[in-house]
Amino acid sequence: MTEHTVRAFTEELEALGADLTRMGGFSEQALGDAVTAIARRDANLARIVIEGDKKIDVLQREIERKIMRLLALRQPMGRDLRQTVAALKLAGELERIGDLAKNIAKRALNIQEFEPIALTRSVERMGKIAVKQLKQILDTLTSQIVAGAVSVWMQDEELDEHYNSLFRELLTYMMEDPRMIGPGAHLLFVAKNIERIGDHCTNMAEVIYYLETGEDIGTDRPKAVDAALPPISLPPPATA
Amino acid sequence: MTEHTVRAFTEELEALGADLTRMGGFSEQALGDAVTAIARRDANLARIVIEGDKKIDVLQREIERKIMRLLALRQPMGRDLRQTVAALKLAGELERIGDLAKNIAKRALNIQEFEPIALTRSVERMGKIAVKQLKQILDTLTSQIVAGAVSVWMQDEELDEHYNSLFRELLTYMMEDPRMIGPGAHLLFVAKNIERIGDHCTNMAEVIYYLETGEDIGTDRPKAVDAALPPISLPPPATA
Repeated sequence: MTEHTVRAFTEELEALGADLTRMGGFSEQALGDAVTAIARRDANLARIVIEGDKKIDVLQREIERKIMRLLALRQPMGRDLRQTVAALKLAGELERIGDLAKNIAKRALNIQEFEPIALTRSVERMGKIAVKQLKQILDTLTSQIVAGAVSVWMQDEELDEHYNSLFRELLTYMMEDPRMIGPGAHLLFVAKNIERIGDHCTNMAEVIYYLETGEDIGTDRPKAVDAALPPISLPPPATA
Repeated sequence: MTEHTVRAFTEELEALGADLTRMGGFSEQALGDAVTAIARRDANLARIVIEGDKKIDVLQREIERKIMRLLALRQPMGRDLRQTVAALKLAGELERIGDLAKNIAKRALNIQEFEPIALTRSVERMGKIAVKQLKQILDTLTSQIVAGAVSVWMQDEELDEHYNSLFRELLTYMMEDPRMIGPGAHLLFVAKNIERIGDHCTNMAEVIYYLETGEDIGTDRPKAVDAALPPISLPPPATA
């Protein structure tokens, strides 16, 4: 490659990084707003999140087009290739986080009748942890400091534990008052979505670790017993 | 490229296709068995699915390594490049389908006490549609006939509608008998997982369509009102 081509290539990679950062910013905003919409039952904010997801999708398609062009014209190798493929994967993860935030916002519109503030507080607390993790992994993306990725990767357990306890709390509540079963089911899915956002942050941590080191971070990520399946041990239903 | 290099490259692409087909076969089997495990409360079959997910994960990592090598050494262009990147994406989708099947199998272990056969039948029916869609899209992958991809892409609505009606059925049931809230919540997630498997099949259809035509299949996929949020209109709870 001539010096000119190398410079052009570096610029394209930098532009790609800037796009990703922008996409990350949108997802972070969407997640934060979706969690607030749940906590404050803010229908307007929920609608803004739902509407805003389109621009995340558009940005992803744009990034993918740029990557295909880059692969075809520049034929990157070594770290450049890893960086290009990493961008493809990270854009995919961010798009899914945007989708999940949109889904949380939609459910915020459906739980207007759900009164127990304590429970939406628990959801809000869980949501804030996810926002923090997403922010941290996006910082890692910019700073390219591997320790940040490892740190996010190690945190996955925290959200799993919150999810397990929230799952039990919600079920107990639904058993005590069957009118809460409908909105309670929506909150179950909100909690699950937040837990999945944590998984996507962990995926991003793995991609960034591989990008920086050329090695896999490990196969067994830290997991609280089993996030998907909190053991059911509930008080006998009040209405039985 | 020399004729020799071209031949070697074609062989590598074919090997990649064979790996993908194998991975597809594993995912299809896992999904089918997970659905059967729910329908028949077959704990052994569920455990086989859970254990078997590891080999899907291993295969994905292998495919990714091959793709990185292919991109670095062969520097494919045009359709070859599209095919290589498509393989990366399809492997990602299949890995997620395997994960979802594993999660369904785990929940099968948790609903032993759930008696209403009618409801697990509904779940089974929904699961069989997902199996059919997955099979169809995997056939498309082998036959490379675009019409198959378009057909799967158009079917997404069917699973969404099943999910909506199952969501309402399950909630009604949970309201009538609060002891069913625990297992009912697990079945809600099973239905959601099957619906998501349908989404992954639709994603695969989009990837295959792009691979074959070089164009996007469209931005608005067919959707039943809103799969994520079936309207809640339930009979008054029996216990109120």
